[in-house]
Amino acid sequence: MATIDFQNIATQFVEHYYTTFDADRKNLAGLYRENSMLTFESSQSLGVASIVEKLTSLPFQKITHKISALDAQPTPNGGIIILVTGQLLVDEEQNPLSYSQAFQLCQDPAGQWFVFNDIFKLVYG
Amino acid sequence: MATIDFQNIATQFVEHYYTTFDADRKNLAGLYRENSMLTFESSQSLGVASIVEKLTSLPFQKITHKISALDAQPTPNGGIIILVTGQLLVDEEQNPLSYSQAFQLCQDPAGQWFVFNDIFKLVYG
Repeated sequence: MATIDFQNIATQFVEHYYTTFDADRKNLAGLYRENSMLTFESSQSLGVASIVEKLTSLPFQKITHKISALDAQPTPNGGIIILVTGQLLVDEEQNPLSYSQAFQLCQDPAGQWFVFNDIFKLVYG
Repeated sequence: MATIDFQNIATQFVEHYYTTFDADRKNLAGLYRENSMLTFESSQSLGVASIVEKLTSLPFQKITHKISALDAQPTPNGGIIILVTGQLLVDEEQNPLSYSQAFQLCQDPAGQWFVFNDIFKLVYG
């Protein structure tokens, strides 16, 4: 659908994002920019500092994301929209939580991909 | 986060989209354009005719979407990204199916909002 290999970029990005999140989520700072937006369980943050503060203040110590599915499409501005569905294992909980997360990736002037839009939502069955 | 009232436009759009889908889904044609993309359960369609053919060929007669949550953000090109989570009631099935759907809305030259990106995915708990 476009000349960029959006599926491959999306897959690599999502793996990197969740590996970083699960290892030490303050290191996600490099994936956001000053105009990036995060909506986490309907709470909104704008910009790197605010987003990282939100992510690092989440009340769990150990977290593991397991991706169930990932679909991507190119967007009008040369970006990539991604819908991830997956499961979260939090601390010592035995039961995983289902979640969905939508990203829009854009390229900065140096050609590096970053997260412009990030919407995370738990899904209750 | 932007001058457009993205939350209100997103809410109105999503209500209109699912009402139309549940009543007669071929009437969704007016919400897509020739460069619109649909990824439905990882199957890709491009353009109005292909998207409407996909939607109308889905193997159910009666469907009801129930929205659980809707979050929206403005996008770099003046569009709106939306993440919907909800439940589907299909035909005579008693058990609802959980789903997630990500949209990116854009405005056409006449100022009308249309779906540029549409990714639909069932979520298994």
